[in-house]
Amino acid sequence: MDAPPEKRPGPSRRIASVLRVVSMGLGAPLVAALALFTLVFAVRCTQVWLFPSAPDAPHAAQKQAYLDALPAVDAAAAPNIVVIFFDDLGWGDLSAQGNRLIETPRIDRAAAEGLRMTHFYSASPVCTPSRAALLTGRFPPRSRTDRHVFFPEGSAIGIGRRMLGWANELPADEITLAEVLQRAGYATALVGKWHLGDREGFRPGDFGFERWLGVMYSNDMWPLHLYRDGAIVQRDERAGGAFAAERDEAHPLGEGGIDQSTLTARYTDEAIAFIESHSNAPFFLLLAHTFPHVPHYPSADHAGQSRGGRYGDVVEDLDRSTGALLDALDRLELSERTIVVITSDNGADYGGSPGGLRGRKGDILEGGQRVPMIVRWPGRVAPGQVSDAPAMNVDLFPTVLALTGLPLPGDREIDGESLMPLLEGETPAPRDLFFFPVARTMPGAIRRGPFKWLHRTGDLGRDRGHLSRVDLDEEAHELSDLHPAEAAALTGELEAMRAQVAANPRGWIETGH
Amino acid sequence: MDAPPEKRPGPSRRIASVLRVVSMGLGAPLVAALALFTLVFAVRCTQVWLFPSAPDAPHAAQKQAYLDALPAVDAAAAPNIVVIFFDDLGWGDLSAQGNRLIETPRIDRAAAEGLRMTHFYSASPVCTPSRAALLTGRFPPRSRTDRHVFFPEGSAIGIGRRMLGWANELPADEITLAEVLQRAGYATALVGKWHLGDREGFRPGDFGFERWLGVMYSNDMWPLHLYRDGAIVQRDERAGGAFAAERDEAHPLGEGGIDQSTLTARYTDEAIAFIESHSNAPFFLLLAHTFPHVPHYPSADHAGQSRGGRYGDVVEDLDRSTGALLDALDRLELSERTIVVITSDNGADYGGSPGGLRGRKGDILEGGQRVPMIVRWPGRVAPGQVSDAPAMNVDLFPTVLALTGLPLPGDREIDGESLMPLLEGETPAPRDLFFFPVARTMPGAIRRGPFKWLHRTGDLGRDRGHLSRVDLDEEAHELSDLHPAEAAALTGELEAMRAQVAANPRGWIETGH
Repeated sequence: MDAPPEKRPGPSRRIASVLRVVSMGLGAPLVAALALFTLVFAVRCTQVWLFPSAPDAPHAAQKQAYLDALPAVDAAAAPNIVVIFFDDLGWGDLSAQGNRLIETPRIDRAAAEGLRMTHFYSASPVCTPSRAALLTGRFPPRSRTDRHVFFPEGSAIGIGRRMLGWANELPADEITLAEVLQRAGYATALVGKWHLGDREGFRPGDFGFERWLGVMYSNDMWPLHLYRDGAIVQRDERAGGAFAAERDEAHPLGEGGIDQSTLTARYTDEAIAFIESHSNAPFFLLLAHTFPHVPHYPSADHAGQSRGGRYGDVVEDLDRSTGALLDALDRLELSERTIVVITSDNGADYGGSPGGLRGRKGDILEGGQRVPMIVRWPGRVAPGQVSDAPAMNVDLFPTVLALTGLPLPGDREIDGESLMPLLEGETPAPRDLFFFPVARTMPGAIRRGPFKWLHRTGDLGRDRGHLSRVDLDEEAHELSDLHPAEAAALTGELEAMRAQVAANPRGWIETGH
Repeated sequence: MDAPPEKRPGPSRRIASVLRVVSMGLGAPLVAALALFTLVFAVRCTQVWLFPSAPDAPHAAQKQAYLDALPAVDAAAAPNIVVIFFDDLGWGDLSAQGNRLIETPRIDRAAAEGLRMTHFYSASPVCTPSRAALLTGRFPPRSRTDRHVFFPEGSAIGIGRRMLGWANELPADEITLAEVLQRAGYATALVGKWHLGDREGFRPGDFGFERWLGVMYSNDMWPLHLYRDGAIVQRDERAGGAFAAERDEAHPLGEGGIDQSTLTARYTDEAIAFIESHSNAPFFLLLAHTFPHVPHYPSADHAGQSRGGRYGDVVEDLDRSTGALLDALDRLELSERTIVVITSDNGADYGGSPGGLRGRKGDILEGGQRVPMIVRWPGRVAPGQVSDAPAMNVDLFPTVLALTGLPLPGDREIDGESLMPLLEGETPAPRDLFFFPVARTMPGAIRRGPFKWLHRTGDLGRDRGHLSRVDLDEEAHELSDLHPAEAAALTGELEAMRAQVAANPRGWIETGH
C-alpha cells in the first residue's frame, strides 16, 4: 500500500480563513440582523399560537342564532341532496364535453337525463377556496381561503402560513351548507376530501357533517391519513418528502399508506351505504372524490383499459362510481326525490383536459375555472337541457336553501345566487361573476353576459386588461376598442368589487341591532 | 424666510462611511473579480469582432459549386411560386379553422380551392429559426438559428448574443430557396420581414432575393427602418425604448417612424407590382407580412370593423391583401401557373387564437408550432382537400426543388421532405418531425403518426416525458403506460436525433472527395 499523502490544509480550513476576513466587515451588521429577525420571529410565533384564527365574535354569535332559528324541513317532502365533487376534473375530461379518448357513459347519461351547464365555474382555480365557496356560498376572501390552499398543521408550509397571518382552517364563524341542512333535519355526510383545516375543532364534524370517511388533503400531500369521523383509521406510515413530486405514481413512497388505487371504490361503497341507511330521511351527501388529482392510481380491475391512459383510467373509475351511486338511487326508488349535482373543484391539471379553453388549474382564465356541471333530478329538472348561462359553485348554497325553503343568513354577503329559476326552465337574470387569482385577496376578473374582463393577462411585456367574448372565443382576442362601453362597465364593476373586498373582506353585513 | 437648517452629515456621507467599513473585508476580492471579468470581457470582444460567424469554408465552397452546377429551368413551363408568410398568425385565427369572430373569406376561399393541411407545423415556435427553416429546409441548429431570434447589430442584446457565441445572422454557407431559384432562372423578391441578420453581406440581396421591400425585424423591435433592396428608404426616427412594451399601440413612440397602419397595403402593392412586372418569366415571391405580430395597427379604412377587435382588424387586412394578390394572379391569367402557399411562422401570440390547441408562441406544444397551411394551385392541386398528414415548413425547400426538377444539395442534411406526393393526392409515407424549444440546440419533442413525445412538459413538480395522441387530444392525456412500444420508439428516435445534433449540429454530410 502507498503511504498516505502528507497532511495539507484542507479546503474547509481555507474557506474558514476567507470567512474570517470577510466577517471582519460583515460580522456586526449580520449579528444585528439575525437578532432582529429572531425577535420578530418569536413575537410572531407567540401571536400565532396564542391566537389562531380567532372567530369574529359577533358573527359567531349571529351564526349560532341563525342556526338555532332555522325551521325543520318537512322530512316527507324535502329532497335529498347529493353533490359529486371531483378534484381537478377538467372541462374537457368528459366524453359529453368532447373528449375523444376518455369514456364517461354514466356521467354523460346523467347529463342527458337532466341539465348540463357549459359555462359553469368553480369559485377558484385551486382546491381549498373552491371547496369553501361550495359550502358557504361565498367568494374566497369571505372565508379567509384567499391564500392558496391549506397545509398540514405543523408542517413547514403550515407554520409559514400562520406566520404570514394566513388562515389554515375555515373560520368557525363561517356557516356551511352541511350545518344548515343538519339543523333543518337532514342526515349529513362527507365522503372524501375535506381540505378546509385539520386542527381539532375545524374538521368536517365541526362544520355539520355527522359522518365522514376520507382524507384531509389532496392526493399528493403528506401525510395522507384516512379518517373516519374524528379519528384516523388508517395512518400514512410512509416516509414523507417535502415535495409532492417525490410521492407521485412514478416515485411511490412504498408500503404503509392508504392504497390509493382502492380509494374511489371505498368512497363509493361508503356513499352508497350512507344512502341505504338513510333512505327514509332527507340526506345531504357530499362525495368529494380524491381523483383525478395527481398521483394517478387507477383501480386494479380497470387499470390500462382507458384509451385516455392512466388519467383516463382514473376518470373512468369515477364514471363507474357515479353510475353505481345513481344505480343505488334508482334501486332505492330515491331518484325522483334526489337532486344530484356533479361538478369539479377547478380546471384541468396534469394529464387533464381543459377542452380547448385557455389556461389550466391555477389560472383565472377559463381553463382554470370553467368546470363540468350536471344537475340530474328526474321529474323536476327536464331531461336533455344544455345551458350556457354563466354560474358558479357559490350558487350551490343559495340554490339548496331555496329548494328546501330555508332562509339565508342576514349578517353576511352570500355571493351566489339560486339556480332554481334556471333549473325550472326560466331564463336567469344577468349577473356578475368574479374570479379570484390564486393567493390574491382581490378579484382579478369579472364576467357579465358573454363578456369577461381580465384586470391583467400576466403576459410578459403586455400585462394589461383584456376584454373577451367567452361565448365565441377562448380569451384570445382583446375587444376593449370594439366594445368600450362594456370594457368601461366591467372595469368599473371590478374596481367596485375590489374596493368592497378591501373595505370588508369577510363580507359582513351590519344588521344594525 | 426661515433660515436654512444647520448643515448635518447627509445620507450619502453616512452610506459612504458604511461602505468604507464593509470594503475593508470585501475590497480585495471585489477588485480581483472585477479585473478578471474585464480581462475575459476584452478577450471575448476581440474574438467576436475579429471573427464574426465565419462560414464553414469547405461548405461555403460546396454551396458555390452546387449553385454553379444548377440547371436552368424551362422558363415556359416552370411554375411561379408565391409564399404568403404571416407573422404570429395562430392556428385558430382563420374562420376556415373555426374562428367565430374574425372573418377571412379570401384565405378560406383559397383553402377551398386547394388543400388545407390541419397538422402542419412551423419549424420553431419563434420567428428567426422558422424563417431560416422555411428558406433552407433545415432544422434550427443547422443554420445556427437555435438561439431565440436575431437582434439589431450593435444593440445590447445583439452584442450579448455575440459574446455568448450565438449567431446573429444566417451563415453565408447556408443555401436558401431564393438562391437556388434565382440561379435556375427565377425572378426573386422578398416583400416584408427578413429577420435573418442586418449585417452587410447577410441581407436578403445576399441570399438570392433580387428585390426587397421591407423591414429587418419584428413589428415591436426598434429601430424599424423600411428598406428597399440594400438601402434604408424610410428611417425610424423615433426615440427607442429598451423594451418592446414601450413601443406598442398603447404606448406609441410618436411621429418619425414607418406608418405601420399602411404596411400591409404597401407590401401588397409591392407584391402585385412585382408579379405584374414578371408575368412572362417564372418568379418566386416571398410575401412575409409584418402582421399580425404586435403592435396591432389596422389600416385606416378597416379599423374597428372586425368582430375580433383590433387583432381581428389586422388579420382581416391580411385576408384582403391575400385576396388582392390572388385576384392579380387571376387577372394576369397566372393562377394555373402559380403555386400559392399560405402559412405562418409560429403559433398565436398576444391577441391571437391557438384554436383550442395547448400552448402558444414560444412553446413546442401544438399551439406554439401548429399553424395554418394552405396550398392553392388550380389544375394541379385538387380543390376542397383537407389533410391531417403531419408536415413542417422545412418541407417547402425540397417541395419546390422537386416541382421545379432541381437537385438537392448533397453536402448537408435537408430535414424537410417533398410534399409533392401529398399535393398530387398520394398518401404520404410515415415520417418523424422534430421540435426545437426556444433557445435550445437540442430537439425537445418528436411527432410520428398520431403520436407526439415531449421530452419534458416543463410542469412544475412533474417535469417529465409526455406521450400524447395529437390527432384526438390536445396534449392533455399522457399515454406512455398505454402505448409503451410507441413511447420507447419515440424516446429512442428523439435520443438518436439529439445525439446526431450534438455530434454534427450543422448537419454537414461528408461527401468523401
